[in-house]
Amino acid sequence: MSHVSAQTMANAVRALSMDAVQKAKSGHPGMPMGMADIAVALWTRHLRFNPQNPHWAGRDRFILSNGHGSMLQYALLHLTGFDLSIDDLKAFRQLHSKTPGHPEVDVTPGVETTTGPLGQGIANGVGMALAEKMLAAEFNREGFPVIDNHTYVFLGDGCMMEGISHEVCSLAGVWGLNKLIAIYDDNGISIDGDVRGWFRDDTRARFEAYGWDVIGPVDGHDIDAMDKAIAEAKTSQEKPVLIIAKTVIGKGSPNRAGTAKVHGEALGDEEIANTRASIGWNHPPFEVPAEVYEAWDHRAEGERIENEWKAMFAGYEAQYPELAAELKRRLAGDLPADWSDVVMNAICQAAEAEETVATRKASQKALNALAPALPELLGGSADLTGSNLTNWTGVKSLNTGDATARHISYGVREFGMSAIMNGVALYGGFIPYGATFLTFSDYSRNALRMAALMKRRVINVFTHDSIGLGEDGPTHQSVEHVPSLRLIPDMDVWRPADTVETIVAWAAALERRDGPSSLVFTRQNCAFVDRDEIDADAMARGGYVAAEAPAGEGEADVILLATGSEVELAMKARAELAARNVQARVVSMPCADVFDRQDAEWRTKVLTPGKPVLAIEASRTDGWWKYFSGRGDVLGVDRFGESAPAGVLWERFGFTVENVVAKVDALLK
Amino acid sequence: MSHVSAQTMANAVRALSMDAVQKAKSGHPGMPMGMADIAVALWTRHLRFNPQNPHWAGRDRFILSNGHGSMLQYALLHLTGFDLSIDDLKAFRQLHSKTPGHPEVDVTPGVETTTGPLGQGIANGVGMALAEKMLAAEFNREGFPVIDNHTYVFLGDGCMMEGISHEVCSLAGVWGLNKLIAIYDDNGISIDGDVRGWFRDDTRARFEAYGWDVIGPVDGHDIDAMDKAIAEAKTSQEKPVLIIAKTVIGKGSPNRAGTAKVHGEALGDEEIANTRASIGWNHPPFEVPAEVYEAWDHRAEGERIENEWKAMFAGYEAQYPELAAELKRRLAGDLPADWSDVVMNAICQAAEAEETVATRKASQKALNALAPALPELLGGSADLTGSNLTNWTGVKSLNTGDATARHISYGVREFGMSAIMNGVALYGGFIPYGATFLTFSDYSRNALRMAALMKRRVINVFTHDSIGLGEDGPTHQSVEHVPSLRLIPDMDVWRPADTVETIVAWAAALERRDGPSSLVFTRQNCAFVDRDEIDADAMARGGYVAAEAPAGEGEADVILLATGSEVELAMKARAELAARNVQARVVSMPCADVFDRQDAEWRTKVLTPGKPVLAIEASRTDGWWKYFSGRGDVLGVDRFGESAPAGVLWERFGFTVENVVAKVDALLK
Repeated sequence: MSHVSAQTMANAVRALSMDAVQKAKSGHPGMPMGMADIAVALWTRHLRFNPQNPHWAGRDRFILSNGHGSMLQYALLHLTGFDLSIDDLKAFRQLHSKTPGHPEVDVTPGVETTTGPLGQGIANGVGMALAEKMLAAEFNREGFPVIDNHTYVFLGDGCMMEGISHEVCSLAGVWGLNKLIAIYDDNGISIDGDVRGWFRDDTRARFEAYGWDVIGPVDGHDIDAMDKAIAEAKTSQEKPVLIIAKTVIGKGSPNRAGTAKVHGEALGDEEIANTRASIGWNHPPFEVPAEVYEAWDHRAEGERIENEWKAMFAGYEAQYPELAAELKRRLAGDLPADWSDVVMNAICQAAEAEETVATRKASQKALNALAPALPELLGGSADLTGSNLTNWTGVKSLNTGDATARHISYGVREFGMSAIMNGVALYGGFIPYGATFLTFSDYSRNALRMAALMKRRVINVFTHDSIGLGEDGPTHQSVEHVPSLRLIPDMDVWRPADTVETIVAWAAALERRDGPSSLVFTRQNCAFVDRDEIDADAMARGGYVAAEAPAGEGEADVILLATGSEVELAMKARAELAARNVQARVVSMPCADVFDRQDAEWRTKVLTPGKPVLAIEASRTDGWWKYFSGRGDVLGVDRFGESAPAGVLWERFGFTVENVVAKVDALLK
Repeated sequence: MSHVSAQTMANAVRALSMDAVQKAKSGHPGMPMGMADIAVALWTRHLRFNPQNPHWAGRDRFILSNGHGSMLQYALLHLTGFDLSIDDLKAFRQLHSKTPGHPEVDVTPGVETTTGPLGQGIANGVGMALAEKMLAAEFNREGFPVIDNHTYVFLGDGCMMEGISHEVCSLAGVWGLNKLIAIYDDNGISIDGDVRGWFRDDTRARFEAYGWDVIGPVDGHDIDAMDKAIAEAKTSQEKPVLIIAKTVIGKGSPNRAGTAKVHGEALGDEEIANTRASIGWNHPPFEVPAEVYEAWDHRAEGERIENEWKAMFAGYEAQYPELAAELKRRLAGDLPADWSDVVMNAICQAAEAEETVATRKASQKALNALAPALPELLGGSADLTGSNLTNWTGVKSLNTGDATARHISYGVREFGMSAIMNGVALYGGFIPYGATFLTFSDYSRNALRMAALMKRRVINVFTHDSIGLGEDGPTHQSVEHVPSLRLIPDMDVWRPADTVETIVAWAAALERRDGPSSLVFTRQNCAFVDRDEIDADAMARGGYVAAEAPAGEGEADVILLATGSEVELAMKARAELAARNVQARVVSMPCADVFDRQDAEWRTKVLTPGKPVLAIEASRTDGWWKYFSGRGDVLGVDRFGESAPAGVLWERFGFTVENVVAKVDALLK
């Protein structure tokens, strides 16, 4: 051990945090200063990591659910020897720096997930701990714990108040995630002040009610006590563990510690000077004495433990070569070698069968065709398994406690499900998908956004996608959700028209490595599209000519641009229009996002410039006008739905051949 | 008392429920059959209501948070004598019936709120109980408890799992809402089956941790036991009360009771016959014996208790005429008589001051001008009061326990806040508003939708509205949220450009009786718009000509269509374009939704058909193309933001005069 005291090490974190915030004139010093001592206990005495290989599979996961305290994490990463220099810290919150305002995965080495939106970090942690548990059960062998790590989450009062913390911590209890250790920064202050005005939960009782072990309250500034608490938490055999750490926000600042003022603004030169004096840190901003760096440096120890693990993995590889190869593939996120054959077979079978089924049923058929080839597929539903049809023949449910289970009943917890899936995807080894009714994508919306921001392969299955769900009425009928999901950058929204497009959509979502997809399915039957040819590559481009004008390509008077269940209507209208000597091309656009990424040649081939276009989708209409280079109109739904049988509603909302014909007539006048 | 047994009364509910679902071939029989006995205990022995006046201010509120069990409520409303006929029950889930799939306020007499999206009903109940408590404290006088009712909420496992139940029940505990009584249908079954696979909370311990009293488990089929539990709950003096009722879902169905199958599908003729036999209900579908109707009929009793209340209110009115008049005004939702003067004064002052401030600051100034005239205004923030600037000079915080408080620190609970506001608005007497950062509107999105669906005057304040918030980075920077909120039907989204438009937006939101508004404000300063004239009526039309082309109306070469902080950029670009001999009109569109409702004359005056338009808004671009009748382009943001100072970001994302000029040049080529 170095002669540098643990307290001094903590003060290095405090100093770097307050100085970086001061330089940026923006940021949150309170949390890093308050949790610095806890961080010393965890990062120097327990956390297993190698700063020189942030992606080492055997590392413990560390999540800052209270992500506004990003400088805490940046200071720790810098001090322990990650590729994060003092200049990076000086560039805190500046354009293209490695130290953005909130921690961002893939931007900063050592950051495991992007946090800031409160409550989602702990949810990601639950997902990571679940993935670890399931992957360990599948791949570990006697003497070879190749998957074996803890997941540590720092979280504050904000995370505790957020509803998502209820959803995911309840599930962590059900799942018995004993290697999940959450440390609660119980400082009694949130932005509006003393939390007792709006937050008086007995948090210990609450977490015990979820089936967690709870340790504390512990003095969060007593590094040895925190060390002991973490050591105790690591012995848990069946339950996740919450450590309640009593801290003072902004600890070290003589005049601001313990107040809301220290939460989210720079201390100012004077109070920084006061703090330096108070904590005995007599070094200029961004200067850390060599012996303090030395005390923090984790590179040698990190290399040592990774090398131990590597040696163990080499033995595993020797004894279980196939298992090792499969684990490597899974962690790399590569699909199986025969993947494209599997997809092509599924498409051929669907093309042959020409079935008219609800696309949610088509989705289940796709799963039956694809899932057996994809052991990494980890499905689930927020208590709508039989409605979303997310299970496939023979899949085991996690509720059985079987580690080879591949379907999870998440309960009625949409937001929790989505944020847990983000954690699973971040951990790796699995491709998660989860389902609910499309309208309830609202509940999980910010987690969908986070998956997109983090560019993770997470698949959202949203069924019952329009007024077509019928009797359940406007609370359940999506009218704004498809266009609204399309507005999330980097989210691919697929709304397939039939069995074949459904397989193409699933394949695209599974093959997409750099972002999430939403697969939107109907409750009601959709006719198999009688398209000119079955060209899976064309479908995979997001928009394609399903049926050319009967008289040929150059002859189209109008383009009917439709998605999902409305393609059937467009096809029927095309026939009726032909009988009236109007030549209509039907463009099916299962994924506008993917279509928009195609080259101009493809886009103009599908949507010939100048041709009148009638877009047909049972959703808000605003988003379609960008596709109209000539005259255009939209048949959509710009009001809430109603409770009635689907057939009655289609008629009432104008989704009839007659109305399409009338709209085309008006367009061509 | 009638000779009809309580059990028979419950069986009438069971029979009507299963028969209506069977006739509709759609719906949820399990919950109504499981909670029928509880309903008898509550509705015949405790609930205070008058079927002939569903709007009587003294009534207890009843909420079906597990709204899929709508037939329970419809059966109760029918049997007790509300204007809901047996034919209405026969029309269950049919177009334009008074019995839609899920309960909808304003559609069915006696339904207090629209439910179905789980967890939000209990949140509405918390809001109603809060409104009752605050209104009672303000208006009641010794001997005149003019505001005095309980709020009863039925909820199931789904509501208990949803995160929002955590947020709002925690707040109900803090607020000590002792007249809120929640009855938990603890049947152990959700759609995926036995809940123990995904839900093992100790719910008693959880609610005690929130500061609730918990009664039970009680046998939910023992009507006298439930009666006693409710009677006990009503004696609570300080805490909300949860009654845990153990029930069997689908009780009465010999082969389906206790299974997930009975939850959401019709029993079928055979099992209905079995059930009839099993419960001894030997009447044809939709036939209820006269003596059973008589036993249920609550009209005389309802009239009696309302008359008692009316007599008391008459005494109150005699003794406190001003207070009574004010209470009547508040409950009617009318604004004060001098309201338009107040608004006009505020606008004149802002027009004179010509201040350059952030619109969030302009919003606070608007509140300072308007709030003192509006005692019904009940503001709040999800723990961002000092950032959202939702408090005004002298406003008291609810945290003080003062009933005349008009600002609530909701804690970090965005969804809970929004759904509680819906409950407050439904109760009446207040106009609620609540705030968070715009990006976290995601968290509350479905409650925003519910406010729109219910057409309630709820005001959402969303600050920090774009990349302009700067350093906090992409997790906090809205790029899709303004267009996405616009997609919610009946939601008016205001994004004002300066101090004057901010007052107009607040006034519009406050005056709008039939729907919610979202007020979107900047973190950063916005220049006072140097418009041609200050015409509040024009601004109130949602879009107007802020500055005509310098050479006159007919001379405009291009229209710069901008919102919020981008109006300043448009004005600068207009000047630069004029120097280059390009005539630009600047249209400010603070509310596209309101603009879209204007007559064609106004719309074409503002956006002259055929004129090229460049839309400028720091958001996703898709929604603007519908306004382009000639050439058009959009300067927007179609990707996630970045962490950097705001000035750097505006430059990087192209929000510069040079870039606007370049885009106009390209448009005019």
